[in-house]
Amino acid sequence: MTDHNEVKMVEMDYSETRPKVKNPLKIQDLSLRDGHQSLFATRGRTEDMIPVAEQMDEIGFWAVEVWGGASFHIMHRYLNEDPWQRLRTLKRYFKKTPISMLLRGQKLVGYRNYADDLAELFVKKTVENGLDIFRTFDALNDYRNFETVVPVIKSCGAHFQGCICYTLTEPRLGGEVYNLEYYVKKAKELEDMGADSICIKDVAGLMAPYDAFELVKALKAEVKPPIHLHSHFTSGMSPMTHLKAVEAGVDIIDTCMTPYAYRTSHAALEPLVMSLLGTSRDTGFDIKALTRINETLEKDVIPKYKHLLDNTKLSLIDINVLMYQTPDFMRANLQKQLREMDALDKIDEVYKELPRVRKELGQIPLVTPTSRIVGTQTVNNVLFDTKEERYKMITAQVKDLCYGLYGKTAVPIDADLQKKALKGYERGEEPITCRPAEVLMPELEKARKEIGDLAVDDEDLILCALFPVTGKKYLMQKYGKEQVPDTVKPITLEDVKKQDDMIKKAKAGKLIEPAADLPEKSEFARTFNVFVDGECFEVGVDEVGGSPMISYAALASVAPAAAPVAPSAPAAPTPPAPPAVSAPKPASAKSVAPAPKPKPAAPAGGSGTPVLAPMPGMIVKYTKNVGDAVNAGDTVVLIEAMKMENALLATVDGTITAINFKTGDSVAKDDVLATIE
Amino acid sequence: MTDHNEVKMVEMDYSETRPKVKNPLKIQDLSLRDGHQSLFATRGRTEDMIPVAEQMDEIGFWAVEVWGGASFHIMHRYLNEDPWQRLRTLKRYFKKTPISMLLRGQKLVGYRNYADDLAELFVKKTVENGLDIFRTFDALNDYRNFETVVPVIKSCGAHFQGCICYTLTEPRLGGEVYNLEYYVKKAKELEDMGADSICIKDVAGLMAPYDAFELVKALKAEVKPPIHLHSHFTSGMSPMTHLKAVEAGVDIIDTCMTPYAYRTSHAALEPLVMSLLGTSRDTGFDIKALTRINETLEKDVIPKYKHLLDNTKLSLIDINVLMYQTPDFMRANLQKQLREMDALDKIDEVYKELPRVRKELGQIPLVTPTSRIVGTQTVNNVLFDTKEERYKMITAQVKDLCYGLYGKTAVPIDADLQKKALKGYERGEEPITCRPAEVLMPELEKARKEIGDLAVDDEDLILCALFPVTGKKYLMQKYGKEQVPDTVKPITLEDVKKQDDMIKKAKAGKLIEPAADLPEKSEFARTFNVFVDGECFEVGVDEVGGSPMISYAALASVAPAAAPVAPSAPAAPTPPAPPAVSAPKPASAKSVAPAPKPKPAAPAGGSGTPVLAPMPGMIVKYTKNVGDAVNAGDTVVLIEAMKMENALLATVDGTITAINFKTGDSVAKDDVLATIE
Repeated sequence: MTDHNEVKMVEMDYSETRPKVKNPLKIQDLSLRDGHQSLFATRGRTEDMIPVAEQMDEIGFWAVEVWGGASFHIMHRYLNEDPWQRLRTLKRYFKKTPISMLLRGQKLVGYRNYADDLAELFVKKTVENGLDIFRTFDALNDYRNFETVVPVIKSCGAHFQGCICYTLTEPRLGGEVYNLEYYVKKAKELEDMGADSICIKDVAGLMAPYDAFELVKALKAEVKPPIHLHSHFTSGMSPMTHLKAVEAGVDIIDTCMTPYAYRTSHAALEPLVMSLLGTSRDTGFDIKALTRINETLEKDVIPKYKHLLDNTKLSLIDINVLMYQTPDFMRANLQKQLREMDALDKIDEVYKELPRVRKELGQIPLVTPTSRIVGTQTVNNVLFDTKEERYKMITAQVKDLCYGLYGKTAVPIDADLQKKALKGYERGEEPITCRPAEVLMPELEKARKEIGDLAVDDEDLILCALFPVTGKKYLMQKYGKEQVPDTVKPITLEDVKKQDDMIKKAKAGKLIEPAADLPEKSEFARTFNVFVDGECFEVGVDEVGGSPMISYAALASVAPAAAPVAPSAPAAPTPPAPPAVSAPKPASAKSVAPAPKPKPAAPAGGSGTPVLAPMPGMIVKYTKNVGDAVNAGDTVVLIEAMKMENALLATVDGTITAINFKTGDSVAKDDVLATIE
Repeated sequence: MTDHNEVKMVEMDYSETRPKVKNPLKIQDLSLRDGHQSLFATRGRTEDMIPVAEQMDEIGFWAVEVWGGASFHIMHRYLNEDPWQRLRTLKRYFKKTPISMLLRGQKLVGYRNYADDLAELFVKKTVENGLDIFRTFDALNDYRNFETVVPVIKSCGAHFQGCICYTLTEPRLGGEVYNLEYYVKKAKELEDMGADSICIKDVAGLMAPYDAFELVKALKAEVKPPIHLHSHFTSGMSPMTHLKAVEAGVDIIDTCMTPYAYRTSHAALEPLVMSLLGTSRDTGFDIKALTRINETLEKDVIPKYKHLLDNTKLSLIDINVLMYQTPDFMRANLQKQLREMDALDKIDEVYKELPRVRKELGQIPLVTPTSRIVGTQTVNNVLFDTKEERYKMITAQVKDLCYGLYGKTAVPIDADLQKKALKGYERGEEPITCRPAEVLMPELEKARKEIGDLAVDDEDLILCALFPVTGKKYLMQKYGKEQVPDTVKPITLEDVKKQDDMIKKAKAGKLIEPAADLPEKSEFARTFNVFVDGECFEVGVDEVGGSPMISYAALASVAPAAAPVAPSAPAAPTPPAPPAVSAPKPASAKSVAPAPKPKPAAPAGGSGTPVLAPMPGMIVKYTKNVGDAVNAGDTVVLIEAMKMENALLATVDGTITAINFKTGDSVAKDDVLATIE
């Protein structure tokens, strides 16, 4: 054993043609999935992956992760992209490099456990569309949630990578629950299931370098499959964690190309390549080829996404991760939730309540979706609980967790909480102990019936089965039955340049705001219609303090010479109420916002009790119709907020007299969703 | 020896009250000097250091670097700050923590070697003003340049830290010149000089982790003083490099607080603290206290500087460092120089020429100022050389280098180049071999005479001796003899908020540009003077295509009700040439730019030969006066560009008939500096 354990100095040849070592460190690149999911809200588009795919295929990656996780959901909902098409397209460009995805076990690429029939079809179609490696995880590390998908993965000849979600209850590895023995035990379970490789999945960047060393060392000693490390940069430790994992003999490490690296993403590949040059774990990669890829990304791709980057802080790491053992993205969600509910001042209470809720919910790991389950419930507790009663508003997901629908928690759920959560729970008040999906009825046929002819193939069907509301909406657009909204269309480098120019001008103080907050017009005001190139501008001149003044005007920013007036340029200010003769709108003016949806007015006292949205969200469905009788406590409507469903209950007995939204509608806080009389 | 060499696992107590270890890793914080020098162009102000100084004093840092390097220059030139005052102020807040500075050996805090009398007084006054630790380096690692300052440092009772500039000619440690033996030899030289500690100074972030291990290990074995590592994050390797240096037994490491960390600065402190928790090298620092400092910085300080951050790329590391072995800041300077000279397309030629110039100049390290010497000469070669002749325009600094004025180069300078550079060189054509400063005449008295009564104390005198032009200008302002220009005044958090709001609006498309690029007015144009609250706006109405139009107008963005018109709001567009009756300027309008300096017109053919500025820069001095006779080849004027002096030569015989600028003036490329007839 040398000073650096498994890393030995072997060679001082740094050329591109240096001899390959026996056991190079293998690398999976995450840029095209976790990279943009971490930095750019998963908004990466297939058209922006193609320019680098062929170059990346030449590097020699163990695999490229390009699919799964949140990307399936985001693609069809926000990018007008068919997720299956991306898989097929990228497969054409990655000819040599295996393609991997992040599979959420029985939750597939969604946020709840799906029935076995759907899970089986999903895996089968995914392999058919080109996938090679299934990185499979379960938020509770309950591998019964792998039992359906793994045999299908194996029978399709694909690679089954089993994950252990890495989580802590102490600042470092150890403590009662998540200690070295726990992780070794989990690895053995995966080995017994036939895992082709085992991944330690550290989404929060919690893993410290010397803990990584101990952990990898132990796993290498105890199990046979290759060990793969996935540790986010969030806390700033991951470059060191990577190096110590390599010294402990880790087989594969996840990194990103430089423009997709750091912050809450992963450490960059290139420094690791250089650090291992001339050692027994040399990756063998051509650093110049990596540079060329980075140049393409910086020039042609990143400009379209940089506006999505979170720049609220200059700090690139989040040391709170190290103190609270909670992932950065979870704390970001908590803040977002609180902000939307005008309750950001409650953030400290939330941080205090969080470990309590986590413990009561069985000390579960904090990864998607358990981080949301714990987080949203924590926010609900802080906002809605009273001194007398905790857990006043329990989310549907917490009820499911208490029922056992997510699987077995690391320690038992608090018994009182469990009882309360399951009171009147639709599946039954007694929690299950079997494999969660066993209680789920097959759901493919039901989905097939619901979507009907709109689903042309199994891929369409799966999309709708996984995401009934947004999936259907996407198919309507895909097959031309609904117009594709502008909001899901890509922006171009030209758009970016225009906006950058405007920002540059704004910084230089060269832009002005259109006139606003104008004084009242006097009785002496005179109004002129001024016609410019087919546009009419109303100019009011009003005498103030003895001098005539222009009280408001639409100033034509006239293009030089004979060029037509640019339609978006003159942003005509809205004239004050009287006389409100609005100027004719240029036909192609893009800046005109759609008319705001009229907000149903809260009914006056006596005309019924409103069911108000306690938070912004999307209507999942109404469980009552107009005319239905309800009792206080009955669920009236399900609202999705931060990807968690919340049941809104009737607060009085009566009859539903109004329903103001429909499934899929976005609602704001305090919108009246229904009325009971 | 355990698996991790000098790092042993000792303790699983992670509390703030955990017991101190025997040999904790010591940390020097660089936030308040190298941190803002690396990220924010050295623009950090004393007022923004005070809010965290007391908190930082509690952490237990080995030292805080807060002075020296570029900060002395930037403070008085761009921030209207007396550098000496900062030292005294911070000393009041850092009661327990030693204060350190970066001293450029005989160059002190400037860019040339100063005479011994000045160097001695500088060190003496620096200690008197509160400094504890002199981090001393020489760009050539020629320690004869320490011979004057070290005895003064020692006799003042201060700490002498000797630096070895880390540089490479290969991708990794090794090769003919900068190999392990070289660094050990240099460390021994420093030990022999009485160094209290030895720093390896890696300004480019070139040091790879396993090279750091070898190097620190060797130094620990061969010399006694504590070993201190300074390695920038630029290439992304430094977190790993730090860890391996700790394992090799390094005593002290340089880091920054998180908001000042990463990019071209240093890795953050906090992940290192967490990584070493529970080991034999535990820093003992309280991570919660660090968090509080970061919060203050993010909230109250960083917003004022974030606009200075280089955001041209999203990538946070620069892997070109690893390929070219040239510091990032050097390549940034090269690009800036080329851009200012409209020659950015020549960047590839520059990169090709660079190692050639470096080698011809004696394979010198690339740190301040040698990086500039090599860089500027390289640019000159690319821009001005012909096929027949290389080194057509040799900078004054290259001449000085060839003469031996900077010290001894690692390998001898190319003999032909040296001969050419020294032809007609004012100090002599034969290079010196003695300690460079030995040939310098004492300069204090001369400086004292020049500055006269304006310098009230030795501190003022030193400022002017080091920076005759900008130092004098600063003192004129300090003592109220000249007005402090707005450009050197700080911005406030309110300014920042206003600008952020404008940028937000620009992004949302809510801002418009004032009318510009207007059409010519016809003969039928009518002009009205419209008076608004004491301001007059000229409104032209011109009939176009049968309809009257507003051809240009100053639109009053009137404040609500009786509020006075905001002076900066209406950004009146400049009316087209005739009729140019300019509107009266509001007295307090800040957005009005000062009138541009009239540019001396290039004389028409026959009226003389112009001496043109070949690049933008500042006039250092004219060596000829109007009426002087000159021969072709004589120096007419010295111009400073990118901190390098360039002599501009007469191209013809004749008499100086015009001199269009004076010392201290900024000039643009192609400005006519003088005329010869």
